[in-house]
Amino acid sequence: MRKYTHNNNELTLKNLNEEVCLKGWVSKRRNLGGLVFVDLRDRFGITQLVIKPDNPNYNDALTLKNEYVIEVKGKVVERESKNKELQTGDIEVVVSKLTILNVAEQPPIAVSYDDNSLEDTRLKYRYLDLRRPKQQHYLMRRSSITQTIRNYLISKGFYELDTPILGKSTPEGARDFLVPSRLYHGSYYALPQSPQIYKQLFMVAGFEKYFQIAKCFRDEDLRSDRQLEFTQVDIEASFVEEEDIRDLIEGLFVDLFKKEMNITLTRPFKKLTFKEAMDLYGSDKPDLRYGLTLKDPKTSLAFIPFLEDKVVRYIKVEGGANFTRRELDALTDEAKKNHGEGLAFLKYQEGKLTGSISKFFEDNDYIKEYELANDDLLLFVFGKDYLNVSNALGAVRRSVARSLDLVKDDEYAFLWVVDFPLFEYDEEEKRFVARHHPFTSPKHKDDLDGNLEEVLAKAYDIVLNGYEIGGGSIRIHNSTLQQKMFKALGLDKETVNQRFGFLIEALSYGTPPHGGIALGLDRIIMLMTHTANIKDVIAFPKTQSARDLMMNAPDKVDLVQEIELGLKKKEEK
Amino acid sequence: MRKYTHNNNELTLKNLNEEVCLKGWVSKRRNLGGLVFVDLRDRFGITQLVIKPDNPNYNDALTLKNEYVIEVKGKVVERESKNKELQTGDIEVVVSKLTILNVAEQPPIAVSYDDNSLEDTRLKYRYLDLRRPKQQHYLMRRSSITQTIRNYLISKGFYELDTPILGKSTPEGARDFLVPSRLYHGSYYALPQSPQIYKQLFMVAGFEKYFQIAKCFRDEDLRSDRQLEFTQVDIEASFVEEEDIRDLIEGLFVDLFKKEMNITLTRPFKKLTFKEAMDLYGSDKPDLRYGLTLKDPKTSLAFIPFLEDKVVRYIKVEGGANFTRRELDALTDEAKKNHGEGLAFLKYQEGKLTGSISKFFEDNDYIKEYELANDDLLLFVFGKDYLNVSNALGAVRRSVARSLDLVKDDEYAFLWVVDFPLFEYDEEEKRFVARHHPFTSPKHKDDLDGNLEEVLAKAYDIVLNGYEIGGGSIRIHNSTLQQKMFKALGLDKETVNQRFGFLIEALSYGTPPHGGIALGLDRIIMLMTHTANIKDVIAFPKTQSARDLMMNAPDKVDLVQEIELGLKKKEEK
Repeated sequence: MRKYTHNNNELTLKNLNEEVCLKGWVSKRRNLGGLVFVDLRDRFGITQLVIKPDNPNYNDALTLKNEYVIEVKGKVVERESKNKELQTGDIEVVVSKLTILNVAEQPPIAVSYDDNSLEDTRLKYRYLDLRRPKQQHYLMRRSSITQTIRNYLISKGFYELDTPILGKSTPEGARDFLVPSRLYHGSYYALPQSPQIYKQLFMVAGFEKYFQIAKCFRDEDLRSDRQLEFTQVDIEASFVEEEDIRDLIEGLFVDLFKKEMNITLTRPFKKLTFKEAMDLYGSDKPDLRYGLTLKDPKTSLAFIPFLEDKVVRYIKVEGGANFTRRELDALTDEAKKNHGEGLAFLKYQEGKLTGSISKFFEDNDYIKEYELANDDLLLFVFGKDYLNVSNALGAVRRSVARSLDLVKDDEYAFLWVVDFPLFEYDEEEKRFVARHHPFTSPKHKDDLDGNLEEVLAKAYDIVLNGYEIGGGSIRIHNSTLQQKMFKALGLDKETVNQRFGFLIEALSYGTPPHGGIALGLDRIIMLMTHTANIKDVIAFPKTQSARDLMMNAPDKVDLVQEIELGLKKKEEK
Repeated sequence: MRKYTHNNNELTLKNLNEEVCLKGWVSKRRNLGGLVFVDLRDRFGITQLVIKPDNPNYNDALTLKNEYVIEVKGKVVERESKNKELQTGDIEVVVSKLTILNVAEQPPIAVSYDDNSLEDTRLKYRYLDLRRPKQQHYLMRRSSITQTIRNYLISKGFYELDTPILGKSTPEGARDFLVPSRLYHGSYYALPQSPQIYKQLFMVAGFEKYFQIAKCFRDEDLRSDRQLEFTQVDIEASFVEEEDIRDLIEGLFVDLFKKEMNITLTRPFKKLTFKEAMDLYGSDKPDLRYGLTLKDPKTSLAFIPFLEDKVVRYIKVEGGANFTRRELDALTDEAKKNHGEGLAFLKYQEGKLTGSISKFFEDNDYIKEYELANDDLLLFVFGKDYLNVSNALGAVRRSVARSLDLVKDDEYAFLWVVDFPLFEYDEEEKRFVARHHPFTSPKHKDDLDGNLEEVLAKAYDIVLNGYEIGGGSIRIHNSTLQQKMFKALGLDKETVNQRFGFLIEALSYGTPPHGGIALGLDRIIMLMTHTANIKDVIAFPKTQSARDLMMNAPDKVDLVQEIELGLKKKEEK
C-alpha cells in the first residue's frame, strides 16, 4: 500500500520528472508506432502510461488486455497531445518497470464506459458493474452522505445505538421476514420492519437522544424504488415537541446539502397540513417545484347535466391548449386509475372556447371566473367525494408537469406535511387502522373519546420533490392512553397483552414525552445523485423478483439444515 | 428541547442566581423540616432540587415518587452542606415551578444504584436496567468507540459500504440462520456469518479500501462472551501485504486508546508466530501481561518411570510453593480438561524439595537446571504430543496467574500472532478443513502441491490480554489457486460450482491482490470498559438460551404467516 506514490487522478505538470509508482486496471491498451499506450484506471481516475520497445517488460506489455491488474514504476513526462477531459491529461508516465499482478478473462459486460447490458446481466456480474466509474460514484456518495448525516447528529448530542436484527414478529404493519428458531421448533424470530419499539424503549431507559443507521426489512412485493431490505436514519428524542424534531431535521438537511452538494437551502422549510396538501395538490407528498394548484370552481358546475351530483375540481394549464386528443385521453385514464370518475376539459385559443364541455358555457358568463388567456387549458376531474377527486386531479397534475417538462432536476423543494389524520378506515378489515403506527400520539389526549375519523395526529412527513423522504411523530408516552389507542384499533386485551404487553408495562415506569422520525436513506441518496433506480445506490441489490442473481439467493439448503430447524423430518428424505 | 437550559451535571457555583429549567427522573425524594428535596437524574448526572412549602406546586412535590418524570424552573443557590461526590454538589436549585410529565409505578428492579436482581429479571426489564448509570455508560462508550474507529478508517481513505443481510447459505463454517422465501417455497436466504465474500467482491470491483461496522450472525450455542448476533469491524484493502493491514490496525488501536482512554500504546505491537505462541505460552491468544512462560526440561525426564515415553513441559511459579493440595488438584484437572494426561509438581522451600516427583531427584543433580529459589513451584504437564501438552500447560498457566492475581486490569498487552497453519485436520470429517476460511492465501502459491499439514497461511490474529480481538489474512486472488484450495479441502467440482462458482468466476476478471481483517467490536468494547459480560455492551442482548426475555422472542406466529412461507399447509389448522 505504502509503496504506491499516487492515485490515478493525481499527477499533473507539477510532478514532471518525478519517479512514481502506480497500480490499477488496464482500461485500454493501444499500440502506436512501436509504443504501447495504456490507460491505467483506479477508483480515482485514469493515468496514461507509455511502454517503449527498449523496456525490459515490453513483451509483457504486448500481452496486456483490458482489466488486467498491473503495477508500474516510471517517470512523469509532458504529453505531446494533451487530453483536456482528464485531470491527468497533461502528462503521461514513461514506464521503467511493469509488473502484471493478475490477468483477466474477457469480461461479460463492458467496464470502462456506459454499458447497455440488460439489468439482469449487470446484476449477475455486479462486481464488474460496480467497476464502472458511474456506479462507484453512487456508492462513494452513499458512504459520504451517510457519514455527514451521522456527524451532524453526533454534533447535536445524539448517541448511535444499535438494536437487534433478530426480534419479534408484530404483524400490525407490513409482512415480516421470519427466522425459524433451532432451539424452539415452531417459534420464530422476525427481522425488524423498523426499530420503532426499541427506540421508544431507549427513551424509557433515559438515553434521550438516539439515532441509528438501521437496516429494515419488509417482505412485500418490490417496486423500482423499493427493496426487501432498506436503510433508514432512525432518530428519537425525549422531552420534545413536533417543532423540535422538525428543527433538527431541517438543520440536518441544510448541513447535508451544503457539505455534499454546496447547495444552500432556505429555512424554515414550507409546511402544509395534510388537508392543505390534498386541497392544493391532491397529494400528501406534493412536488412543489411547479404550480398547477388544484382549485374549486366558484360557480357550481351542477348546470352541466352529467356533473349535477358530482364533486368537481380543476387545474389551469397555461399553454396547455396544444395537448392532443391522445394526450388528453391519457390524462383521463390517469384520473380514472386514481379513483376519479372522469375528466372534462376546456381549451381557449384565439378567442374561442372548445373542449368536451364548451357548449355548456355558451349562453352564460360562467367562464369569466377562470380568467383564461390564449392557449390555456382547463382540466376538470369529477367524482363522488372530495378526497378521491383531489387525489385523481393530483395524479393528472403530475402527468401534466412531466409532459410540459416543468420539473427542474437541480431544484430541491422541501416540504413538511403535518396534521395527518391519526386513523384511516380499512374497508377490508372493517375497522380503523393507524395511518402511521399505533404508537403515534393524537393532538390532544382526550381526542380518542370523540369521532375517530376526525382525530389528528402529532405526525409529520418530510417531502422532497414529490417523494416522501421521512416520516415521524410524537409518540404516546402514557400507558393508559396507549391502551386506549389499541382499543380504538379494535385489538382485544389478550392480543394487546401478547404483542405489546411489555411496552404498556414499560410506559408505566416513568416514560418521558418523546418523538422522532425515520428518514429513507436510500431514497435520499437517489435524489441527491439524480438516479431513478434505487438499485444504483445499493451495493448488492435484489431484483424485482426478490433474488440475488450474483450469489443465487434464495436457494435450496442441505436437508440437515431444515431438519435442525424442525422444518422437515428425517423420514422426508 | 430548547427550553431546557442545562443538563443535570452542569450547574456549579458559576451559575449562582441563574434562572434555569431542568428535566429528568426523580432519583430520590426526601422531606426534611418541611422542605422537599429531590435528586433529579438524567443521562448526564444528578442535580438537587428544593421545593419549599410556599411553592404553588408544593402538594405535587409531596406526591413525587422514584422514577417520576418532571420538569422544573428555579434558581441556582449555594448548598449549605456540599456533596463533594457530585459534579453539581456545591449548588441546589430552588424550584419555582414543578411540572409532572409522567408518573411511575414502583419499578420491579432498582434503578438508581447497583442492583442485585437476577440477570433474567434485569433482561426482562432491560429498559429499566438500562436506566442505571453504569449500564448507560457501557452503551455510550460503545457509541463513542465505534465512531472513533469509523473516523480513523475514513481518515485513511476507507469507504464505509454496506452489504446485504439477506444472503446465501454457505455451510463451510458455523451454522447459518435461515430465512424462508415467500416467493420460492423451499428456498432460503441466510443471514451473513460475516461479509467475507461481499468484501472480496468489493475488491474485485475496484473499491480498494472498504470497511463496515457489520452485524453478523451464527446459530451456535451461546457462551458468556458470545451472542447470536454480534458486530464486527470488517475491513478489506487491495494492493496490500500482511504488514500493510497490521500497520493500519496498530494505527487504529493507538488512535482509539489515545482518544477514548488517554492511553499511549507503544508500536510496533509484539509479534509471535503461531509456533512461538504455542511453545512459549501454550495458546494462540496468550495473555502477555504476565510471564510464566512454558519451558522444556533440558535434561529428559525419562528417568521418571511414568514419564518415560511422554512429552513433558513445565512452568516455574515463583512463590508458588504455598499452593495447597486442593489448588494443585484443580490445576491437574485443568491440565486434563485441556488434552494433557496429567500434572506433576515440585516445591522448594527452606532448602527442601517436596512434591509428587521429588523422590526421583534425590540421587542426582538434575534439579540444578531449574535454578530454584525459596518458595518456587515447578508444574510439569505431560502427555503424548507437544501441541497438546503445550495447550494443557497454557491452561494451567492462566489458572496460576488468576490465583496469584498476576493480571493487572489497567494494562493492555497487544500481540500479533502470525504464520498460522493454513489447514487443520478434522478427525470427524476425515479431511483437511481451513483453519481460518477457504479464501486465505498460503504463504507461497506452490505450497498446496506439498504436505498440507505444513502449509502456513498469510493469516494474522490480533490478541489483547488473552482475547482474540480480530483476525484476518491476505486472500487468494488467483482463480486457479482458489480452485486448487477447494480441491485440497476435499470439495468436489459440483459442490464448488454450486456454492462458490460466482466467486471463482469473479476472480478471473482481473482481481487485485487483497486482504483484510475483522475486529470483534463487542469484545473490544468489553475490554475497554472492563466488564466480563458481553451483554453489558449490547443494548438488547439475548440470554444464553437465545431468547429475548423482554419482547418474548422467538415466539409463535400466526398460522397464516407460516402458510404464506410454505412452512405449513392450510389443512394443518
